[in-house]
Amino acid sequence: MNTETSLYELLDGRYEEMVEIRRHLHQHPELSFQEENTPAYIADYHEKLGLEVQTKVGGRGVVSTLKGGRPGPVTALRADFDALPIHEQTGLPFSSKVDGVMHACGHDGHTATLLVLAKCLTEIKEEIEGTIVFIHQHAEEFAPGGAIAMIEDGCLEGVDVIFGTHLWATTPYGTIQHCNGPMMAAADRFEIEIIGQGGHGAMPHLTKDAVLIGSQLVTQIQQIVSRYVDPQKPAVVSVGSFEASNAFNVIADRAKLTGTVRTFDPGVRDLIEEELEVITNGIVSSWGAEADFHYYRGYPPVVNHEKETAYLAACASNVPGVEKTEEMKPEMGGEDFAYYLENIKGSFFFTGAENPEWTKTYPHHHPKFDIDERAMLTAAKVMAKAVLDYPGQA
Amino acid sequence: MNTETSLYELLDGRYEEMVEIRRHLHQHPELSFQEENTPAYIADYHEKLGLEVQTKVGGRGVVSTLKGGRPGPVTALRADFDALPIHEQTGLPFSSKVDGVMHACGHDGHTATLLVLAKCLTEIKEEIEGTIVFIHQHAEEFAPGGAIAMIEDGCLEGVDVIFGTHLWATTPYGTIQHCNGPMMAAADRFEIEIIGQGGHGAMPHLTKDAVLIGSQLVTQIQQIVSRYVDPQKPAVVSVGSFEASNAFNVIADRAKLTGTVRTFDPGVRDLIEEELEVITNGIVSSWGAEADFHYYRGYPPVVNHEKETAYLAACASNVPGVEKTEEMKPEMGGEDFAYYLENIKGSFFFTGAENPEWTKTYPHHHPKFDIDERAMLTAAKVMAKAVLDYPGQA
Amino acid sequence: MNTETSLYELLDGRYEEMVEIRRHLHQHPELSFQEENTPAYIADYHEKLGLEVQTKVGGRGVVSTLKGGRPGPVTALRADFDALPIHEQTGLPFSSKVDGVMHACGHDGHTATLLVLAKCLTEIKEEIEGTIVFIHQHAEEFAPGGAIAMIEDGCLEGVDVIFGTHLWATTPYGTIQHCNGPMMAAADRFEIEIIGQGGHGAMPHLTKDAVLIGSQLVTQIQQIVSRYVDPQKPAVVSVGSFEASNAFNVIADRAKLTGTVRTFDPGVRDLIEEELEVITNGIVSSWGAEADFHYYRGYPPVVNHEKETAYLAACASNVPGVEKTEEMKPEMGGEDFAYYLENIKGSFFFTGAENPEWTKTYPHHHPKFDIDERAMLTAAKVMAKAVLDYPGQA
Amino acid sequence: MNTETSLYELLDGRYEEMVEIRRHLHQHPELSFQEENTPAYIADYHEKLGLEVQTKVGGRGVVSTLKGGRPGPVTALRADFDALPIHEQTGLPFSSKVDGVMHACGHDGHTATLLVLAKCLTEIKEEIEGTIVFIHQHAEEFAPGGAIAMIEDGCLEGVDVIFGTHLWATTPYGTIQHCNGPMMAAADRFEIEIIGQGGHGAMPHLTKDAVLIGSQLVTQIQQIVSRYVDPQKPAVVSVGSFEASNAFNVIADRAKLTGTVRTFDPGVRDLIEEELEVITNGIVSSWGAEADFHYYRGYPPVVNHEKETAYLAACASNVPGVEKTEEMKPEMGGEDFAYYLENIKGSFFFTGAENPEWTKTYPHHHPKFDIDERAMLTAAKVMAKAVLDYPGQA
Repeated sequence: MNTETSLYELLDGRYEEMVEIRRHLHQHPELSFQEENTPAYIADYHEKLGLEVQTKVGGRGVVSTLKGGRPGPVTALRADFDALPIHEQTGLPFSSKVDGVMHACGHDGHTATLLVLAKCLTEIKEEIEGTIVFIHQHAEEFAPGGAIAMIEDGCLEGVDVIFGTHLWATTPYGTIQHCNGPMMAAADRFEIEIIGQGGHGAMPHLTKDAVLIGSQLVTQIQQIVSRYVDPQKPAVVSVGSFEASNAFNVIADRAKLTGTVRTFDPGVRDLIEEELEVITNGIVSSWGAEADFHYYRGYPPVVNHEKETAYLAACASNVPGVEKTEEMKPEMGGEDFAYYLENIKGSFFFTGAENPEWTKTYPHHHPKFDIDERAMLTAAKVMAKAVLDYPGQA
Repeated sequence: MNTETSLYELLDGRYEEMVEIRRHLHQHPELSFQEENTPAYIADYHEKLGLEVQTKVGGRGVVSTLKGGRPGPVTALRADFDALPIHEQTGLPFSSKVDGVMHACGHDGHTATLLVLAKCLTEIKEEIEGTIVFIHQHAEEFAPGGAIAMIEDGCLEGVDVIFGTHLWATTPYGTIQHCNGPMMAAADRFEIEIIGQGGHGAMPHLTKDAVLIGSQLVTQIQQIVSRYVDPQKPAVVSVGSFEASNAFNVIADRAKLTGTVRTFDPGVRDLIEEELEVITNGIVSSWGAEADFHYYRGYPPVVNHEKETAYLAACASNVPGVEKTEEMKPEMGGEDFAYYLENIKGSFFFTGAENPEWTKTYPHHHPKFDIDERAMLTAAKVMAKAVLDYPGQA
Repeated sequence: MNTETSLYELLDGRYEEMVEIRRHLHQHPELSFQEENTPAYIADYHEKLGLEVQTKVGGRGVVSTLKGGRPGPVTALRADFDALPIHEQTGLPFSSKVDGVMHACGHDGHTATLLVLAKCLTEIKEEIEGTIVFIHQHAEEFAPGGAIAMIEDGCLEGVDVIFGTHLWATTPYGTIQHCNGPMMAAADRFEIEIIGQGGHGAMPHLTKDAVLIGSQLVTQIQQIVSRYVDPQKPAVVSVGSFEASNAFNVIADRAKLTGTVRTFDPGVRDLIEEELEVITNGIVSSWGAEADFHYYRGYPPVVNHEKETAYLAACASNVPGVEKTEEMKPEMGGEDFAYYLENIKGSFFFTGAENPEWTKTYPHHHPKFDIDERAMLTAAKVMAKAVLDYPGQA
Repeated sequence: MNTETSLYELLDGRYEEMVEIRRHLHQHPELSFQEENTPAYIADYHEKLGLEVQTKVGGRGVVSTLKGGRPGPVTALRADFDALPIHEQTGLPFSSKVDGVMHACGHDGHTATLLVLAKCLTEIKEEIEGTIVFIHQHAEEFAPGGAIAMIEDGCLEGVDVIFGTHLWATTPYGTIQHCNGPMMAAADRFEIEIIGQGGHGAMPHLTKDAVLIGSQLVTQIQQIVSRYVDPQKPAVVSVGSFEASNAFNVIADRAKLTGTVRTFDPGVRDLIEEELEVITNGIVSSWGAEADFHYYRGYPPVVNHEKETAYLAACASNVPGVEKTEEMKPEMGGEDFAYYLENIKGSFFFTGAENPEWTKTYPHHHPKFDIDERAMLTAAKVMAKAVLDYPGQA
């Protein structure tokens, strides 16, 4: 019986603990950049394993290091642990005990998976070639995110490769999805305030109608994707809100637009940021009006490395419980795992967590979001294989 | 000394009372359809003159009738008495004592003028040919207004002609402005709710973007005035508010537009109401979306009668204190005096109330609005001459 | 029998000559700035009357002067004599003998009227107080028109007042229409060429799509009338042509727009010229494209003088054959009579020329346009009375 | 020495013949669906090889069949032979002798390649396992193209797999480009005529302004790509021409738009065709106008088969003279090779034909277009290896 097989058995034997941890965390969610008890719980768990633990990494992150009994490369696994400002409506017995805060993205499961995996790996540490770093990251949900601060604080020092997963509620349990190259989009935000000149609704000639200027801008913004961007490079520009609240018989002096930009290609991202401002300025100048333009960059795209992704996909296809591995279509959503992959090699993947018996599946960030907890075991096994086999790859 | 001259002297002698009444009312403003003390005060004043008084006419209106000593036609004079939901900032010693309510349109002056005029006319009633009806109207500021209800309740029964004035703060004291035909606009309101389909900002293809649909609609609405309406017929269509408040990364399912339509010509008014709906339906159908469209008619245009306006203008030019009479350009604002003129003959005019010593003049509905109180005396004399001379016209 | 009455009889007696002259001219139309035979014919006619005749005034105009037997003011009457590049389709026996050229605006009738009137006035010249100047103008149909050149060449020197008329085919015979103040619009022209960047229809990101830029511009131009212009001041901005002819699978590098602007108010005219350019520049700058913008001023508005218009209207109402005189609504069409009224006092009026028996009336500039020839007699009489009575006015 | 190696030597030895044939064809180009001499020349060449030749296949195509000495699968190779309506400006000594017709896309090279390859394969036919079908196709440049007719006429009957190449002037000589899945786009055409109501430029209220309606439509069409299409699926909708030619002072009754649609995904193609019509109808209905809408489907996308593409890529990387093989980005251009791949397995690839010494490279369809003739040899060798090795794959 080889190392991996025995590890899988250890994980199977601790599945209940994994579920317990996940449910405990689920009941005690903490918002991004406000995590107190969660990192303490994680650090305590790792310390009890006798591992070398660093806390407050990059603010609130926890990094634990397991040195294997044999020489080899340094591999890292990452799990995020923050929750969302959503009021849970699942009706689950282990629902959130914190009003208006909920683990609605599965980070509770990510954390439980990595903790129990660390415990099992510790038990076989003499067999392990190289060193395994467990990166428990805070604040994935809220830009600028925890990853960048943890990296700046040194969490990747000496690390050769990193893997991470997202439990994915809309992918069937049993499926692992991998993706070479761009996998998740850069997600930016913009705010544009049109500064016109208000007045009486019956006297338009004495005004600069901010509602109309804003409307023209929303219309012209569509042309960024239709005309400015290479049609083979995916991009989205959406204006989410338009606010100009006035009496019906008043012409608005101000209108505020906010929106999001999603891209995979850095050149396209730069182009859109630039053109949004050029278009805004052109439209307002056609009116002799002004605009206050702000563009906020969110996470960069998650770009998986080719060799590591092929390796990860091969690993996954040999893990018990994985019924299917597939190349996935990139997601337009964002993830700050992107920063790790800008610094070192690695690959991020999705672990299917949709229970086949559900009659309705709720998407991530929905107040009724849930996961098939068995997916944690699948995720743990794939990550385990990825780090245990890696020495042969390096 | 003729009747008019003696009446002018009576009025001059009671100017201080007029000012006192106006200031009392100014300190105790009441909102449209909520008037309690004001109509009671008015009714009491008329009763003390020994006139025949009806209260609660059409809700809260007061109608008082003065029968002259000699036979003749029935003429009516109208003053409105409601205030506005504005917090006064004039700093005047007789400022409003009611937080957030203010006589910011001069209706206090209208009422004081008509009360004192009634007293003076009563003193010379034996000389008067015919009957004079004093119509004190509630709720001019808020559609559907008090006029229509008072008319339905009979206030114009037997009346041959009606005159009324607005003290006008942006016209110099000493000037009377008259206008044959359309003088003030029909003022309508519309509300359009776009019902699209919301979704994630990164997945536009699964949505029907209500912000974009609304923006197109605002843009196309401009074409009603530029293309559909006869260029020689004034019209305004303004979208005052655009509300679609969402997270920046969400595509809106709904957007709500409200706006105003101003016209003088009934055909243009019908056309705009109709085309607004056709355009709305066309735009949403191009998206497979829906719209909830509502059009609310406000007051009709004030359309003065030709002969009565010429008569009124001639009267005004012979009243002491009137330095100038002029044909005015129609105003795009609205007035429910319109309803009286739809039922009987008459004319509405503006009495200049801008003090030449002011360094800054605030428009009607402004928290610093004020009037030159001497204009009340001018208004009273013009109305007096109009009713006293009318028997020779009828 | 007074002077006017005898003149009316003289005119009645020469109605057949008037018709003959009109039909002769109708058969031999000449285009604006290309008139040769028409001015020669006119000059000859006047010379035979023994009047003082100037030819080639301002290029191709003819001016003839009749000195009355008694002292008095100098009055002028104007008739234009050019035709249009239209192929006649009336089927009349006296149809145009020149292919593609037609008197489709009634200038043949204007000329015939003025010639015969000159003859009749000459016959009674001893009775006439003052001097009468007959201005036969070339090139009314084509900017910059003949009026401005004739004025610069001195045709108004010493003239006190001018009158002129247009035979109007859509106004019933027997009606005279006058208009105080603005009567016909300023008619300007603009040309905008969008200079984008062409390319393959499948590669929009390498282009600046001139068709799209032009389309946005056409849409935004609507807002000039809906938002920039005082709603009580009539204005029209129309884009008449949009030309960007390419293969279907090519993105256009250029698009050419041409259009017209109609206004009565000089401030509105200036505003529109200015804003058209601001809007064009704003839109193209939002694309990083360029535009070639040209604005060509046509005739100014025809603005009748108040006193002279009232006088003219009074004259008309006392002329036999005039069944109705009415204040007309201003026309959005243009006329270079405007220039005379910018220099001296006067009034332009419409003489109804619609035959009540027609089953269909064709508008001016239509290939089937015609006039009720009797209107020439009406026009002649109104102009005659205007010049004969004027001495009492001056 | 194996079969392939000897074939490569045979080809090298006949390179001059290949060049001669290509230059002969280049001098005698024939337009799509008008090919006479070219198919005769091709048929004659094959007949002289003793092969079984069919002519007039699907109209003007030529199919020749080579039965190998050993049993095996049936493989097909395709070359197209039509030219373009372009006037050659290369200045080459073997320039087109037909005014206004030119082989500006390299089909002369395709044909020469396949003819000489057929000759060489015939020489080693005893060694060949299976049957090789040479498909010489007419009319690739002009929809509906020759491929579909040749297929309907049976040219693929019994064929197991097909390969084809395009000599590509903007890819360096020595490079072979392959592409799994969608490689070239579906290229459709649309025509939309707006039917408004014309009129005088000064009277917009009596018209339905076709220029404005068309402009709105062009603007809204942008939203198909920006909002309706999945951002990860490439699509282009371009309006290439906008024609509404009128006098500047006339409002247009008609405006005609034409454009192109490029897609790879059949669902996206259907969606765009459908939404273009919905949007057109919505916009014109918002105006009470009408539209005449036509959508013409061009070639479907070229979608290469996965296994065959991997096989082809592997073959190419082992061919002498191929310095580089690479996965190419899909092209938005179209090709009727698409139809073969809808019927049987296969793969289309690009053979680099850019001469490294050129100082300027002209794109396909340019009057100065040329190819590096050596690329024909490369193409021949890759196709040879693909058919010779295929029996081991089937």
